[in-house]
Amino acid sequence: MHKELLKNIGEKELINRLGKFMPKNQISDDCALIKTKNENLLVNTDSLVENVHFNDFIICPQDLGWKAVVSNISDLLSSGSKKTIGITINLVLPATTEWIWVEELYKGINKALKEYGGVILGGDCSKGDEKIISITAFGIQGELELRRSACKPGDIILTTGIHGLSKLGFLIQNKIYFDNEFSLNERLIIKSIEHFCRPRVYPNFLNTLLKTRSDRNISSIGCTDSSDGLYQALQDLAIASNCKAIIDYEKIPKDKDWPKGDKWDEYYFFGGEDYELVFSLPRNWAKNLSKIDKDINAIGFFADGEPSIEFKDNKKNKLFNNTPFKHF
Amino acid sequence: MHKELLKNIGEKELINRLGKFMPKNQISDDCALIKTKNENLLVNTDSLVENVHFNDFIICPQDLGWKAVVSNISDLLSSGSKKTIGITINLVLPATTEWIWVEELYKGINKALKEYGGVILGGDCSKGDEKIISITAFGIQGELELRRSACKPGDIILTTGIHGLSKLGFLIQNKIYFDNEFSLNERLIIKSIEHFCRPRVYPNFLNTLLKTRSDRNISSIGCTDSSDGLYQALQDLAIASNCKAIIDYEKIPKDKDWPKGDKWDEYYFFGGEDYELVFSLPRNWAKNLSKIDKDINAIGFFADGEPSIEFKDNKKNKLFNNTPFKHF
Repeated sequence: MHKELLKNIGEKELINRLGKFMPKNQISDDCALIKTKNENLLVNTDSLVENVHFNDFIICPQDLGWKAVVSNISDLLSSGSKKTIGITINLVLPATTEWIWVEELYKGINKALKEYGGVILGGDCSKGDEKIISITAFGIQGELELRRSACKPGDIILTTGIHGLSKLGFLIQNKIYFDNEFSLNERLIIKSIEHFCRPRVYPNFLNTLLKTRSDRNISSIGCTDSSDGLYQALQDLAIASNCKAIIDYEKIPKDKDWPKGDKWDEYYFFGGEDYELVFSLPRNWAKNLSKIDKDINAIGFFADGEPSIEFKDNKKNKLFNNTPFKHF
Repeated sequence: MHKELLKNIGEKELINRLGKFMPKNQISDDCALIKTKNENLLVNTDSLVENVHFNDFIICPQDLGWKAVVSNISDLLSSGSKKTIGITINLVLPATTEWIWVEELYKGINKALKEYGGVILGGDCSKGDEKIISITAFGIQGELELRRSACKPGDIILTTGIHGLSKLGFLIQNKIYFDNEFSLNERLIIKSIEHFCRPRVYPNFLNTLLKTRSDRNISSIGCTDSSDGLYQALQDLAIASNCKAIIDYEKIPKDKDWPKGDKWDEYYFFGGEDYELVFSLPRNWAKNLSKIDKDINAIGFFADGEPSIEFKDNKKNKLFNNTPFKHF
């Protein structure tokens, strides 16, 4: 049940070829070694499955490699990682896979690692019916612990950027038909595809937080990323922290050409794969932060109460009661 | 492209159900935290793919969970891990999968962790066409570094036990037809199935090595496991250490009822999934070790020369030249 082959390439040959993407000291042993120097590690793992999360028609392998790494680094950053150490990669590939696909994937992986830090520490390859990329990423826990469970009533809720763009990019890549009522702005089209194929994250987020910290006694803040959508992120924070999120719809930052309407609100709140950070801070800290980073927006606050999401002035509550997506 | 379901079970519900197998502090955040206390970590990752590495007819999910963990711990031990910290699990499951299958898998996973140490640190679940279990395991590097590249000419080659049993178990589980020339001993049948379904590893190996160390200046020794077969293990050591393995066929330990013949030698040397340790030690150390552990056998030695495997007195060299398996 071993020695499975890629198209015309044996297992050992594949490992040799992948070796060029790795640091020399990591090649060909049973384990990778991580030197920790007395620092705590953050670990995250994610799988991308062909025809569930991607296919060759909507994203090219180089972009896929980039995105697979970035989605893991996003989780590290949303936990307060101060440095990405590296990743391990588990590949499952059908025997019909061309080497060029794998090479492009690894090019994208290494581009993301070059941009955000870290190296390939090791991995495993197997044959399978569909392509699967599982990545486990390692980071060093920084001075501030960012945790889903650390939001407090009274905290301001903030996000690092705009949501919904990745979902729109996904729809465009899938050639989903849009109503003829409006024509989508070309700049928005390009930007959305970019967000879907080459999402970016915020490696300096932790430093900016530390720089603007109003009270040095605070060592943990509430945070997650919006990989499953803004609404899911708010829900996860509310549940883990056992409090109620009150959102001011008017303060939600949108692209200036983002269309209006319930459908577009659904894309915005439930789209996912935006990798923005969604977090909460005491009022003073939030004020300091918004001053030095204009892209960070306060969108509401946490209050005492059963874990839930409410919209201020009852705006938009109807949308979320009618939505087909899961609630508490 | 999210919110995929198991049979009748949503993603969040599945995560909740899996929560019972995890320590409380590890549930529901973006990352797991590993407290390292200034000790270096060993990391290993492996995937098991349905219809490539397993299927429901030859191994039950509880045994599969056990084996998935054990195969990873085997790699940690063969690098000199002194303690298993834990694992992350990436599951890919078809939407038709029953919850009982997943529950049984996790029971097996937790049985192995209870036996050999470690906890579930986190994971990810996705829908897919076939079942895939990817495990990443973390251990603490012990005082002695066991590395494929650390064998030296003059070192004695040893193994912790008998090979081929797992392969025989696999053949029996697959109801492969055996010649009628002989009837397989019932004890051997039971033992082989046990080796295939519930392989065991050697958590005290590092301690036994340290106890018998003849020279305290030696801090690394050559070692790997025989997960891909004894021959592959010897080949990996020879290549990584750039020397030649000379094997004494007569010294290879076999089950007392193991049949004779070329086919059975092939099962023995190329079978795989035995998870025995294959390693090399200076002569005195090897002597000390064999004295206190009767299951450890010297089977040859390393010599100067191009990386290769030779059989003493030219015995069996023909077999390995004729084999369909890959060579250097």
